[in-house]
Amino acid sequence: MKYELYYWPGIQGRGEYVRLALEEAGASYRDVAREGGGSGAMMAAMKQGATPPFAPPFLKAGKLVIGQVANILLYLGSRHALAPKTEGGKVWVHQLQLTITDLVAEIHDTHHPLGSSLYYEDQRAPARKRTEAFWSDRVPKYLGYFEGILQDNGGSTITGRRITYVDLSLFQIVDGLRYAFPKRMKAFERKIPGLVDLHDRVASRPNIKAYLSSERRVPFNEDGIFRHYKELDA
Amino acid sequence: MKYELYYWPGIQGRGEYVRLALEEAGASYRDVAREGGGSGAMMAAMKQGATPPFAPPFLKAGKLVIGQVANILLYLGSRHALAPKTEGGKVWVHQLQLTITDLVAEIHDTHHPLGSSLYYEDQRAPARKRTEAFWSDRVPKYLGYFEGILQDNGGSTITGRRITYVDLSLFQIVDGLRYAFPKRMKAFERKIPGLVDLHDRVASRPNIKAYLSSERRVPFNEDGIFRHYKELDA
Repeated sequence: MKYELYYWPGIQGRGEYVRLALEEAGASYRDVAREGGGSGAMMAAMKQGATPPFAPPFLKAGKLVIGQVANILLYLGSRHALAPKTEGGKVWVHQLQLTITDLVAEIHDTHHPLGSSLYYEDQRAPARKRTEAFWSDRVPKYLGYFEGILQDNGGSTITGRRITYVDLSLFQIVDGLRYAFPKRMKAFERKIPGLVDLHDRVASRPNIKAYLSSERRVPFNEDGIFRHYKELDA
Repeated sequence: MKYELYYWPGIQGRGEYVRLALEEAGASYRDVAREGGGSGAMMAAMKQGATPPFAPPFLKAGKLVIGQVANILLYLGSRHALAPKTEGGKVWVHQLQLTITDLVAEIHDTHHPLGSSLYYEDQRAPARKRTEAFWSDRVPKYLGYFEGILQDNGGSTITGRRITYVDLSLFQIVDGLRYAFPKRMKAFERKIPGLVDLHDRVASRPNIKAYLSSERRVPFNEDGIFRHYKELDA
């Protein structure tokens, strides 16, 4: 089956967690908005059918239209050996992915604490405050949590077994935080040696390595989730 | 099987979506922190085992420890006939629940736009701005989305078939917005007649009606997700 991924063409954003899973799996997919269709094709597809997603990304898989990143990964994980086979294992990695989803929303809110309808330039002072709280409280809590689980399972992957979509997503979290907050992240990385090592090992996996050096990987930029604003990286 | 629900004892919060599903199902469960254990028992349980949740609520179901509301509901939905039986149906209602999860986070951020580590009193001005944007942009988008799906499926339930955990959660959204923002909600409700009707029908279901009038239903208060601050309900 050839999948169709629908996501904003100019950013990594939330679509990137899906792209990484599809690439690692070697799955056949079309990134519709990036391959000629543009946002218009995406918005049109979003409103069709009996199960319209609330927002991109969404994945067409045969007759299914699946929205919400963690839901897409739950679906792909079982089909492409990127999740455990037992029910308990599936529930566990899905739980971890949903916690990453929460973290991603909080990362977004560092630059948009007053909401997406205002420009960053109109919320710079609150963004500084939210970013301070994010780095003093939330990053240690979230990344400390994942580091602890990784270490408890031996350090190789989050489950201690074969790689899952959660490992791929944790790669993206480390990669994105390095882009958005290079100074803060540099100082913080000594507290998460396992995640840094996991990041590097994911980056060197053949399919991921090929993807990252291809044009399919959109460069980080200031329209995505991870944005580099110097004043927030004090 | 008797479930054990772990959640903060003094609030409805995110635990309420799970409580509503357990109550509608007539499932046997213990609300551990509320039934004598307190937050201490909850925090101790959270750190045990090989699959520690990031945060409450979590549900013990036999040997499984399941965190993240939507994940718990995905699990309960299949076991208690609160979700469709087909894979596509399960994926669809899970997607809807994840969109409700996003909405709940945005509701929380109306009073805590700078993060949970600061008191509301220290972020009142940003809270007013975030709340304005929430009501002008986000409420119409989210509730308009659910209203549209409800109407497209005939208006009785979100799937047009038997009741699901999503219908129960939509009851809670309407109920909570009425508590937190009575004036704004009163003006807005004419745009979502289907959701208002769904709210009333869920409230009158025998198990839910009994639950809502019991002491098991924690009253809304200003420590939860839905908080009534007069200045935000202008």
